[in-house]
Amino acid sequence: MKDTATMIPTYEDMLAAHERIAPYIRRTPVRTSDYLNELSGADLFFKCENFQEPGAFKVRGASNAVFGLSDAQAEKGVATHSSGNHASCLSYAAMKRGIPCNVVMPRTAPQAKKDTVRRYGGVITECEPSTSSREATFAEVQAKTGGDFVHPYNDPRVIAGQGTCAREFMEQTDGLDAVVAPIGGGGMISGTCLTLATLASETQVIAAEPEQADDAYRSFKAGHIIADDAPKTIADGLLVPLKDLTWHFVSNHVSEIYTASEQEIIDAMKLIWKHLRIVMEPSSAVPLATILKNPDAFKGKRVGIIITGGNVDLDRLPWVNG
Amino acid sequence: MKDTATMIPTYEDMLAAHERIAPYIRRTPVRTSDYLNELSGADLFFKCENFQEPGAFKVRGASNAVFGLSDAQAEKGVATHSSGNHASCLSYAAMKRGIPCNVVMPRTAPQAKKDTVRRYGGVITECEPSTSSREATFAEVQAKTGGDFVHPYNDPRVIAGQGTCAREFMEQTDGLDAVVAPIGGGGMISGTCLTLATLASETQVIAAEPEQADDAYRSFKAGHIIADDAPKTIADGLLVPLKDLTWHFVSNHVSEIYTASEQEIIDAMKLIWKHLRIVMEPSSAVPLATILKNPDAFKGKRVGIIITGGNVDLDRLPWVNG
Repeated sequence: MKDTATMIPTYEDMLAAHERIAPYIRRTPVRTSDYLNELSGADLFFKCENFQEPGAFKVRGASNAVFGLSDAQAEKGVATHSSGNHASCLSYAAMKRGIPCNVVMPRTAPQAKKDTVRRYGGVITECEPSTSSREATFAEVQAKTGGDFVHPYNDPRVIAGQGTCAREFMEQTDGLDAVVAPIGGGGMISGTCLTLATLASETQVIAAEPEQADDAYRSFKAGHIIADDAPKTIADGLLVPLKDLTWHFVSNHVSEIYTASEQEIIDAMKLIWKHLRIVMEPSSAVPLATILKNPDAFKGKRVGIIITGGNVDLDRLPWVNG
Repeated sequence: MKDTATMIPTYEDMLAAHERIAPYIRRTPVRTSDYLNELSGADLFFKCENFQEPGAFKVRGASNAVFGLSDAQAEKGVATHSSGNHASCLSYAAMKRGIPCNVVMPRTAPQAKKDTVRRYGGVITECEPSTSSREATFAEVQAKTGGDFVHPYNDPRVIAGQGTCAREFMEQTDGLDAVVAPIGGGGMISGTCLTLATLASETQVIAAEPEQADDAYRSFKAGHIIADDAPKTIADGLLVPLKDLTWHFVSNHVSEIYTASEQEIIDAMKLIWKHLRIVMEPSSAVPLATILKNPDAFKGKRVGIIITGGNVDLDRLPWVNG
């Protein structure tokens, strides 16, 4: 096991990742809305990672891990545990390379998530919805398949891959004063820090987090990782804690972490659906929610927002039926 | 009053329109989905006119009319009757030029539509929801204001403006075998015919219509305009009948008109929301509904679909509480 310092990805790793994954990801468009600019008093730019084919930025990191494998390792494929976008994005990337992908998911995960993983050829092994069951099941699966473990965020290949998004964003906007992205485990925020620290060190990186899952905020203020006990938020992509690699970037490069309430997140989500006319997840609404809550911090600035994903249950929208 | 023949817009009118309106409209992106390609057996390209700032392609024709006015006429502004996207798009274009826009709307029109017109500075005069009241009220408003009447579709300036969409589409896709657009009054279809007849005469123009408002289909088969008595469809942008100018294009240039049921339209709408992750109107789902219903007509072809608008009531989605 390497220690953390030797695993921290570099700007060159991000550049190599971008070249490696370009054939398998989309250079997603950047959208703007006069209405949302007026409302916020800022110039807002929305990078639509929900428009990736599997619907989330995580296809960047997953593709970098999958396409960076040696042929010998690739034969055995990849493995992960996730009930969210990482599972489907890793399956998607593995399908593109034509290698196996094993995913451990709690049996209680939504059927739609399981269907998506299977549509991309991922093989699901179900576990009980507990950390101990997940770890035991994953160990079995990995022992049996020899699949390379691709962690959803605490993996230098994944972080380097996520960093490619910020590189495109800067090219597409001719520069930004700040980039705001949601923070869960910190993969996207870390990749953004990695890229901007070299490419645009004057651009602030700001993380946005649900009040009801504010472990990154509390960690940031405390100066060490604090894991949340039982976070509960509609922004279900943001329930996971920081880990050593992502903490490195958060503690060294993030300018600020803002939080928003559940209602503020829902309101911002509806504003984006209505005025940008895109389908995105509650997690992706947290940045706008925090910007509207802290207008003085953003007024007059050019602010980039990463719309991280668009996989949402259209039959259960948070503003319908209360 | 000129006769129809002298009013038919030309390819050069479309080119002039494109140059005139370029500063006020968006060159909207084209999206694709591997999933929808698999499902249809065709290569589908979706031109996202729902991403225009006021949310519909109608900003093209409206802007062409507004910015083509002489300064003397512009002082008196523009006027129209519409309870849909034309009203807000004309208000938006007039706001951009800084001139008055008067709109006659039935008092029963949805509050959200009225709010949008007012947000763009349009002045609403309400009428009763009947043709006679609308015509009488509009005559009064026009007599009082002297505003130039911009018809929602039966106006050569409007048709030339809508034709700019197909020009961008062909540039963005390197050519298509067919373009499918929804048909109501026929403004977008006419503009598409106008442009493609010169630019890509081998590209088929196909119209898509709700079964429950199939007056264009029946007109096309009969060889003369048949107006619908009381059309009733969820695709509320498609309730209006063809008029002389749009009939000219439909009867001379359209290859085929296909229809789809209400349920097929709703299913296609949900597929687009889920897999393209865009917010669009039921009207814009009719093309995909007809493509999925007639797979043999499209299999293996490169097919462009115009997503005409994205103004939808997020609190009342057709598949929720169905």
